[in-house]
Amino acid sequence: MYYIGVDIGGTNISAGAVTEEGELLFKKSVKTGKERPYKEVLSDIIGLIRQIQKEADSGKYGNLGKAESVGLGCPGSCNKNSGVVEFAGNLNWHNVPLTQDVEKATGFPACLENDARAAAYGEFVAGAAKGLNSAVVITLGTGVGAGVIIDKKIFRGENFAGGEIGHTVILLDGPPCTCGRKGCFETFSSATGLIRITKEIMEKNPDSALHKIAGESGKVSARTAFLAAKQGDRAGKEAVDFYIKALACGIINVINALQPDCLCIGGGVCNEGDYLLKPLKELVAKEVFTRAGKKNTEILICKLANDAGIIGAALVGNS
Amino acid sequence: MYYIGVDIGGTNISAGAVTEEGELLFKKSVKTGKERPYKEVLSDIIGLIRQIQKEADSGKYGNLGKAESVGLGCPGSCNKNSGVVEFAGNLNWHNVPLTQDVEKATGFPACLENDARAAAYGEFVAGAAKGLNSAVVITLGTGVGAGVIIDKKIFRGENFAGGEIGHTVILLDGPPCTCGRKGCFETFSSATGLIRITKEIMEKNPDSALHKIAGESGKVSARTAFLAAKQGDRAGKEAVDFYIKALACGIINVINALQPDCLCIGGGVCNEGDYLLKPLKELVAKEVFTRAGKKNTEILICKLANDAGIIGAALVGNS
Repeated sequence: MYYIGVDIGGTNISAGAVTEEGELLFKKSVKTGKERPYKEVLSDIIGLIRQIQKEADSGKYGNLGKAESVGLGCPGSCNKNSGVVEFAGNLNWHNVPLTQDVEKATGFPACLENDARAAAYGEFVAGAAKGLNSAVVITLGTGVGAGVIIDKKIFRGENFAGGEIGHTVILLDGPPCTCGRKGCFETFSSATGLIRITKEIMEKNPDSALHKIAGESGKVSARTAFLAAKQGDRAGKEAVDFYIKALACGIINVINALQPDCLCIGGGVCNEGDYLLKPLKELVAKEVFTRAGKKNTEILICKLANDAGIIGAALVGNS
Repeated sequence: MYYIGVDIGGTNISAGAVTEEGELLFKKSVKTGKERPYKEVLSDIIGLIRQIQKEADSGKYGNLGKAESVGLGCPGSCNKNSGVVEFAGNLNWHNVPLTQDVEKATGFPACLENDARAAAYGEFVAGAAKGLNSAVVITLGTGVGAGVIIDKKIFRGENFAGGEIGHTVILLDGPPCTCGRKGCFETFSSATGLIRITKEIMEKNPDSALHKIAGESGKVSARTAFLAAKQGDRAGKEAVDFYIKALACGIINVINALQPDCLCIGGGVCNEGDYLLKPLKELVAKEVFTRAGKKNTEILICKLANDAGIIGAALVGNS
């Protein structure tokens, strides 16, 4: 017995065979070609599922038996009950009956979940949060994705739109966010936010090493400020300190509201390791609203990177 | 069959007999005398429970039978599992075994819950949120109390400290909060916050009607700004507008994170009625992160006032 997980991204669609315990046995991927009509992308998704099935049947991974189900992780607003992707801006999908179409073509029962939630569930089942009761998983990418697990189940809110922690304001009247609000957590803590913070500080510090580092790589990236700070550059350190302060603020907000067993962060910025994590944990420990003697939320780094989405999607039918 | 609910406040302790459906049959109260040692306050709580029992046995309310259990709503950090009030600053209680002491003295099974959560549960069972699946109840008082109900159960977080929505920052580096953070939702949306906002705007507007209104009542209160605004005072309107904007910001944060069926607000400021509620709902509808066609969280005013605490405490054993 195994489960097929499909992670539909803006660039690639990845799929894999996953055991009941959340082990990814193998994976395959194709380009999304998101400019194409839904039916063409769907056809590639179905093709990918058949490839996974064929590979599983090959015997290379032992006798896996039959696939139990297919789980689909998709960006945007996904209705788990109806199986309809109601809106996925990045793919230009509006009310597409993804689950039904996949079931019809493959014969497997299928299940749909938002990709950030699926990835969070992957980390919960088989990654950093394995074995715990609750977790919040925050992915610091172009935006800030989040998934909330309470009592071992994915938390969705009443309308499948819950868990949008990236779109909670931490600075009233702050920088404009893509969601229409101002000062969202995402405007500071995403890679995009870090680049904006870095650029703002560069403007005020024409002599900073930030300019040299950005010049060498041809652009300001989410690494620029960290590279400068590690060289002892004052403005670089200012950018990093502010980034970590804002990140801590959003994380403490989540902990004060939800007090999960752990809060996992993922995304490229986590490659900074202890340079990010140590000051972050110190700020969180200092400000969190928790009485003496209480068990505190652990801050962890995600373990599964891109595989989390496949693993979580595969097992989402169980949550 | 009936349930006894006890709401332990800094000023009064109230208790009542509550039906299984959440109807409060009658209530009684005593002064808390919080400066006294725990044992003395406990003795009054036990006395109050016996009074409720006696009144229920009197037959005035029909044949109520035996009390099923006693529920205790208490400020501070309450461990429902152990029945210990771990910390209640306002009462100066540290690790008091309240549930055990009440069970020993009365013979009834007892259950402990934080007072804000108990009041939220009261509104959920018998008040504004009756009949729904999930709710967040926010009380705008001296501080901002909150209770979260998910899938008809009180949400407590892993360490019984969850739901502290008042202590989520909405303005990084904003005004200092009693919790040690800066710019918490509570520093804007509590009555204390509204008074601070009003005073700040008064200082900048020496000619405003705010001064006359405050002078007449002898102090700046949470009503001062609303009274001035209703008279057409520009500075008063500025204070009210900013208060509602900050309140909306915190409320939208909660909705984006949790997407409950409803969000109920309570506390004195709700007496302003539509003058508060109409612009608040408009701001929320404009900014909330919810795709077209989704069911949206309803904003409601709490119905049970102080009775919510008794009713919720009485029935908390069921959640």
